[in-house]
Parts: sequence; C-alpha cells; structure tokens
Amino acid sequence: MDPTALRGEFPVLRSVAYLNTGTNGPVPRRAAQAAALQVVAEAERGRTGAAHYAYVTELKTRVRERLAALFGCAAGELAITHSTTDGLNTVLGGFPLGPGDEVLTTDEEHPGLLAPLAAARERRGFSVRVVPFHEIAGEVGASTRLVACSHVSWVTGQVVNLEALGATGVRVALDGAQGLGAVPTRALELGCDYYAASGQKWLCGPDASGCLYVRQGAEEHLGAPWPGYESLSDPGLALELELHDGARRFDVGPLPGPLAAWWLASLDVLAAAGWDAVSRRAVDLAGRLASMLQERGYEVAARGESTLVSWRMDDPEVVVNRLAEARVMVRHLPGRGLVRASVGAWNGEHDLERLLSAL
Amino acid sequence: MDPTALRGEFPVLRSVAYLNTGTNGPVPRRAAQAAALQVVAEAERGRTGAAHYAYVTELKTRVRERLAALFGCAAGELAITHSTTDGLNTVLGGFPLGPGDEVLTTDEEHPGLLAPLAAARERRGFSVRVVPFHEIAGEVGASTRLVACSHVSWVTGQVVNLEALGATGVRVALDGAQGLGAVPTRALELGCDYYAASGQKWLCGPDASGCLYVRQGAEEHLGAPWPGYESLSDPGLALELELHDGARRFDVGPLPGPLAAWWLASLDVLAAAGWDAVSRRAVDLAGRLASMLQERGYEVAARGESTLVSWRMDDPEVVVNRLAEARVMVRHLPGRGLVRASVGAWNGEHDLERLLSAL
Repeated sequence: MDPTALRGEFPVLRSVAYLNTGTNGPVPRRAAQAAALQVVAEAERGRTGAAHYAYVTELKTRVRERLAALFGCAAGELAITHSTTDGLNTVLGGFPLGPGDEVLTTDEEHPGLLAPLAAARERRGFSVRVVPFHEIAGEVGASTRLVACSHVSWVTGQVVNLEALGATGVRVALDGAQGLGAVPTRALELGCDYYAASGQKWLCGPDASGCLYVRQGAEEHLGAPWPGYESLSDPGLALELELHDGARRFDVGPLPGPLAAWWLASLDVLAAAGWDAVSRRAVDLAGRLASMLQERGYEVAARGESTLVSWRMDDPEVVVNRLAEARVMVRHLPGRGLVRASVGAWNGEHDLERLLSAL
Repeated sequence: MDPTALRGEFPVLRSVAYLNTGTNGPVPRRAAQAAALQVVAEAERGRTGAAHYAYVTELKTRVRERLAALFGCAAGELAITHSTTDGLNTVLGGFPLGPGDEVLTTDEEHPGLLAPLAAARERRGFSVRVVPFHEIAGEVGASTRLVACSHVSWVTGQVVNLEALGATGVRVALDGAQGLGAVPTRALELGCDYYAASGQKWLCGPDASGCLYVRQGAEEHLGAPWPGYESLSDPGLALELELHDGARRFDVGPLPGPLAAWWLASLDVLAAAGWDAVSRRAVDLAGRLASMLQERGYEVAARGESTLVSWRMDDPEVVVNRLAEARVMVRHLPGRGLVRASVGAWNGEHDLERLLSAL
C-alpha cells in the first residue's frame, strides 16, 4: 500500500486535517465524479427503461459483492440499507423477545442503537440492562437473550471482547458503525449473528448508505420488520409476503444510481489499497496519536485497537470549533466531556501534528 | 404557466417521449446541477463541521417547508423519508391493531403498501379484506379500524372517493405515490390522517426520497416503529425515547446534502410553474391521451381525474420494449395485461402522438 497515493485520492486532505471519519468519511475524487456523472446521465437519458434498471441493479449487485468480500461472507448474507440504524431496527424490531427476556447493552452506545432498542422494548415488554462497555461479556446472565452493543465504542474506541462474548453462547447483534472498514471484521472471525454498519464513515461512501450482515439461517428469527418491493421474491403476491432468500429480504429500498456509483468507486479505492493494510495503518496511526496526546499530558480515555482516540477537555465543543477554524476537523461527544479524533489510512503524521499544534 | 419553458427544464425531453413519471420522474437540469455541485463540494470541503451540518439541515428544512406548502399543512405534520414504503411501514407498523380488527384495502394496491400491511398482519393478527378499488367506501364495516389504499391507483389511474370515505368516519391511510404532485392534495381537503408519498416520481426529486403527512395529533397512535437519531428530541436520553413533536419523529435518517439540493431544485421548478397549473395540465393531457387511445380502438381501463392512463394489450412487456426502441417510455403492469402511460405537465401533444404512432 502506498499511503501517498491513497491520500491523493481525497481532495479534502489537501487543505484539511480531516480527523472525523467516525462521523462522515472523506470522499474520493473518483467517487464524487462517478456520482456526478450518474446524476447528469439520469437527467439526460431518464431514469426508466430496461437498460436503466439493469444498470442500477448491476451497480447494487457489485456493491453487495464488494461488501461481502470485505466481510468474508456470502453476498446472500448482506442486506443493503440506508444506515446502521436501519440495520439495528431490523434486528431489534424483529428479534423475538418478550416479558422475562433481557437484552444486555452498554453505557457507550449510540442513539442509533438505543432508540431502536427502546422502541422494541416499548412494544415487546422485555427488559434492558446497561453495563460498562468492557464488562459486557461477564454480565451475560440466564435471562439474557440477546447482546446488542458496539463492535467499537463510538465514545472511547474500546473494542468489545468478541471471544469472551462468543464463549457465553448468547446471540450477538453488533453496531459496526465504527468497525466495518476501520478494524478487521471478517464475519467468520467475529462470530456474531448480526452486524449493522454505515457506508458513509469508514467506507467513504455516500450519506444514506449502510449494510446489515445476517448469518445464514439467522434471518428466520427476524420476520419482516420493514418490508417493501425489494424484500419480495414475488411482488405479484405481496400480501403473501414471500420474501427473498437470505439477508436480501432486509434491503431497505433501492440503492439510487448516483449513490451506488459513488459507493462502488469508494469501495474500489479502498480495496485497491488493501483492506487489511488500510485498517492496520489507521489503527497504528490512531495509536500513535494516543501516545502523542498522553506525552503532552492529555487524559486519553481507555481505548482498544481501533481508529478512534478520545481525550478529556474542558468545554469540548469550544475546542472543536476552535480547531475547525484551524481546519483541523474532529468532534466532541455531548455529555461526555471528550473530544474525539478519527484516524484513517489516508491521514499522515502531519495531520496528527497539526491537531496537536492547534490544541 | 408557460409549458414550453417548463418543458425546457428537462433535458431528457429533447429526445425521449417520457411517459413513465409514475415510476421515476424526469430530472430538471438545475436539479442535476445542484446535486452534482453538492457532491463535488463535499469531496472538496468534507462532510463535517458546524457549517456543513447547518447547511444540510437548512436544505432539509427548506424541502420540508416546500412540501408543506404543496400539501397545505404545517411543516410539523410532515416527515421526510426515503420512500412511500417507509411512510406506509411507519403507519401500518405503528397503528394499534389486533385480533378482531379489520384493515380494508383494494385490489389495485402496490407491493409498497401490501408488504407492510402483510407484515403488520403477521405480527398483530388483525384481518385484511381486499375489495374492488371503486367500492371501498361502501365496504367499510363495523370492525374496520383502518382503510389503507391508494389515493390514485397505480394500475388504472382511478381516484379514490375521499368524500365517501370521510363520511364513514373511519381512519384513512393513503398511498399517495401517484397522488402528490400529480393531482390536488391539499391535506385539509383530503380528510385523511396519513398520506405517504414519493419524491422521485411526480416531484421529480432524487431516488430514495419520500415524505409522510401525519395529521396533527394522529402521530400519538403510531408509537415509534423505526426510530433513530433524527427522531429524538434529546439524543442524550435515547433509551427514554423522547421523540420530537409532531411528524418529525418519523423522519427516516438524515437527508443527504446532494439529494436535498436536487429535491429542493426540483420542487422550486414545479412550484414556480404553479402546482395547481402543473396538476391541471397533466390531468388534462392524460385525459386527452385516453380519448385518443379510445378513438383508435384501444380498451382503456376505467380511470379518474389523474395523470395515469392504462390500456389493454397482448404481450404488454413486448410492447413496452418495442416502444422504448422508438424512445417512447411507458411501462407494463405485471399480471394485469396493461400498458400504462404517465403524463406530466412537461409533456406535450406531440409526446402523445409519438406514443400512438409507435404503437
């Protein structure tokens, strides 16, 4: 992998120390061009006819295949959604739970997991127990039917102990918003049944893109919490609700041509650099940033082998806005007293130095 | 309204007799440009920071306001979704129904309504009765808790009798995919509680755009069937599920900047022409097409004051593909033996004549 070549794919990096991929990733030039070309083509040639449908269907198929290659799973185990939240609503809204059942979650979860969980609890009457992120595997109890938590905490960058969770035998649904594309996520190694992720963060795809991994066979537990035309194997018998095989039944709507073209180009840029290399470099750089912060006396929150680094600051929102004026983009974490930097393989040491200087 | 000026906004109309807005509308040049510019801006400047968030939030606010003006409702009565299906899943997945309750629907509904209805029935155990489209108001019975049907039938272009439905006093959820932007939809005149629509059809917006009208107060019946960050009034208390006031709680994800810029430009093109004038011209032209077809001996399906015209053909799929070769874009309706043309205010008599010649 050539870090300079990868960096050159992203126009924003010419001027900005872009350290907020945990919110939205940088956009490769060729992805923006592909999206813009597709938009113009649809205006010029229209969005109808067999050739148009075949083309956008092919784009979606290729996106699904690229994601399956990244995940190390079958394409049939992946649904294309608009967000991590879509995936978590699918799992938490569909998984059979009732009074007496417990869902275990942690104190470092995003609203995109907590809101679906709270809504499902309201409908089904199960209980939710919130435990410290790093203790979750040890807290699995006799009534725990499902663990729903982050693969990588969006707050601190801690990584959940999947080996310990797997040893409990409980079913696991992961929020992978800070996982997929950032840290290794080969499905067979993760050992979870459900993994929901975003396209616009570590995959540098468009906003309103996401995916959901559902282990083969685990789709049967979920019913059809949000079906539409794309879920059906025979749309002519929609009232009979004949669903596609596998995870494709959980596709949320079509993937628009411009977004598909963008996402495909982003995935190709990262796959060409090599997913393992991309992840290794990002995790290494993030570790380097954590050390640099600690050397200067900042209190870095306990973290794991991830791409996120959070540290304590007074008035974090003020700090983030001040850094933005120096074109150093990070974020603060409301209510946590933390500033968070996200480090990608496209970043370099000089981005980290710019951050420290601006602090 | 100047039809030639409106027509000039749509590049595809230079070469194509575009008569399939019921699937996807034509894209205004300025909408494509706005989307492409926003994509490139996000690649150049990034997708983070207070200024970026403020800008995309403002775009979404303006889209919601434009839709509220079209609907004749308060902005707080509109949710921004990714599809008509999202809106129907929200209503049918959330509305309180159980064994002994009946939902009445028709024999001309789209899978985007039937799949959510079937899934809700599977979860809740209510019954569904399917009646002929034009008879629905007379079929409302003592156990009918909800009518869920199209405002305008996607199959024939019939328009549901809302006055007769309103007189029954039953709650009504409309699939407005062929309604909003095509025929008059002033909310106060429609007299329904729920109206779900698409952005990419008669509003000429991007794929993966939609909206849901929820009459003020009627949101309380629906719970939170698919909540996320955008649904919450206080994301810091996500497990308490404190929802936004009004319909905004049903927003499905954020509206990406490029899609918002596109949609806003499309809405502005149509609003500038005048929604009433746009609808009147389209309905008049569609009526003219129906007469022309009948004069030539085609059997036109019984229709209403809408923008859709369907007529009987042997091998409708073959006909549609043959017409596409002559750059006349219509669609067939699987299993119905019908070809359907969608007529917009941007079409002209010569588009209708091209269709008839090519037939």
